[in-house]
Amino acid sequence: MSQSEFSIIAQYFESLTLRRDDTFLGIGDDCAILTCPAGHSVAVSIDTLVEGIHFFSDVDPRTLGHKSLAVGLSDLAAMGATPAWFTLALTLPNVDEHWLSQFSLGLSSLAKYHNIQLVGGDTTRGPLTISIQVHGHVKANEALRRDGAQVGDLIYVTGTLGDAGAALQLKLHNLEQSVLDDEDKSYLVSRLELPTPRIEISHKLIGIATSAIDISDGLSADLGHIISKSGVGAEIVIEQLPLSVAMTKIDKTTAYDLALTSGDDYELCFTVPPQYKKQIERELASHCTQIGVITEHSSGFKIIDKKGDVFSLQGKGYDHFPS
Amino acid sequence: MSQSEFSIIAQYFESLTLRRDDTFLGIGDDCAILTCPAGHSVAVSIDTLVEGIHFFSDVDPRTLGHKSLAVGLSDLAAMGATPAWFTLALTLPNVDEHWLSQFSLGLSSLAKYHNIQLVGGDTTRGPLTISIQVHGHVKANEALRRDGAQVGDLIYVTGTLGDAGAALQLKLHNLEQSVLDDEDKSYLVSRLELPTPRIEISHKLIGIATSAIDISDGLSADLGHIISKSGVGAEIVIEQLPLSVAMTKIDKTTAYDLALTSGDDYELCFTVPPQYKKQIERELASHCTQIGVITEHSSGFKIIDKKGDVFSLQGKGYDHFPS
Repeated sequence: MSQSEFSIIAQYFESLTLRRDDTFLGIGDDCAILTCPAGHSVAVSIDTLVEGIHFFSDVDPRTLGHKSLAVGLSDLAAMGATPAWFTLALTLPNVDEHWLSQFSLGLSSLAKYHNIQLVGGDTTRGPLTISIQVHGHVKANEALRRDGAQVGDLIYVTGTLGDAGAALQLKLHNLEQSVLDDEDKSYLVSRLELPTPRIEISHKLIGIATSAIDISDGLSADLGHIISKSGVGAEIVIEQLPLSVAMTKIDKTTAYDLALTSGDDYELCFTVPPQYKKQIERELASHCTQIGVITEHSSGFKIIDKKGDVFSLQGKGYDHFPS
Repeated sequence: MSQSEFSIIAQYFESLTLRRDDTFLGIGDDCAILTCPAGHSVAVSIDTLVEGIHFFSDVDPRTLGHKSLAVGLSDLAAMGATPAWFTLALTLPNVDEHWLSQFSLGLSSLAKYHNIQLVGGDTTRGPLTISIQVHGHVKANEALRRDGAQVGDLIYVTGTLGDAGAALQLKLHNLEQSVLDDEDKSYLVSRLELPTPRIEISHKLIGIATSAIDISDGLSADLGHIISKSGVGAEIVIEQLPLSVAMTKIDKTTAYDLALTSGDDYELCFTVPPQYKKQIERELASHCTQIGVITEHSSGFKIIDKKGDVFSLQGKGYDHFPS
């Protein structure tokens, strides 16, 4: 990185973030040097957001800064890892000081909240593209994974589903707006633009959950990863999917369709053996909802309504390369 | 990452790379889980290459795959770290199977040579952009850094300088071609497109070198980082800069100017206390050249010719945001 590029990173980002004791060397050399606590491993995930694909060109740069880091933190939550460090590869069409200061404010607020330090980066010229790699601490054998779900486990999700998808459809004018008041719309948009990584909840799942994933591509796609990796089936009851107040106001089929198939909610989906049902519901009652059970592999993935009839899916998981 | 995106990564990259014993969990979950050897830390660096800025649109995708990883490996070399893992964030305008297979071949050949495993990635649609984060093992207190140079230390560089810059000028038709034969041109272009990360040499510098950096932005800019971080000055003798045979054929002032200021060579510049001079020259004689000495901070950064006259710089370090 050349001096002036480094200055951009330094000016807008370095001073805004915190310093951790386990960062041996941060920004300013060829590499950062990071020291994991004894007995812990490093969980890493990299995600890219591209203008026009993952966010609208007119998005508030402050919310974009938040979301760029939130998607990575959500991956750490899905593993039960504790956030520690991140790197930022930022490709910019030009040096827009207002944009940079707002983007870095959104980024650093979330970083401070989760005690995650910016330790390196690269700034290049080109079409607006943001890649962030997050690094967390986790005891390798305790990590929440996709491949541990067992037949009979209960399936839970955190928060409410479909809000981010509904907000996207609102912005694309594909959703009937008249049933929603301004507060509803603002709520849905904040769910799309300012997702909450479920770090705190995920730490309560260590030693209890048999599998976990974050819902980035839609519940059906992401639960699909769990059952595929675990070699099991799943049955979920459509009316048990948790909906926000705003979502209960829109057409019911659309609401459940979004809850099942739309991405960007960044809630967690996880499975728990039945003996932990009381513990989960005591500790996390207001944060999670049971939506179904893990079944035999041969039963496949069934979505039924409360009468037991099959619910047929209208949408499909978000895909950057639709075929 | 959605299923079809994951399939792209999986199809072209996962099978081509190796598996390391210290990778607890690789591609296929929300995070990879990486375990560092006891007593070691993780050295990390992220770099982005953008089409039209860092490479020509018609570049051979196989050499691009090599270079995308080489620039990160060069950062690990600059720290004396041992390559272990990398992640790949790939933004593609479309799914071009020929391009992907060639790019992944170039990438995986270099990855195998350095025993570095691909452990995660993200594939998105958009203008061609490649971000790679490398991770290496290093004992934190032994890492080569930019800030340890001492007055009296000898300054060395590996390999030859300015070749990559000359190749770029050849491609831009800014360099007199007639003095170079096809072999010279091919050599220079391979130095631009297929840089050699100096991992093996860097490991011999641990415990000996007081500072090190890789030459990505040009010797004057990168040695400038060492003296600035170390609070010292430097004096280098222009005729001591190592030039390749091809470079000795071009105009001498241009050759030295490129050797001083052009980027992309990915050689190492390092400093060594005088008592190690014999050891360095015995062990690395054919791989490195002494170009000067570290001086007092108050002496600044002097470039002189062998007669002792000041050499005035024509070019300047490569900068993605020229002011």
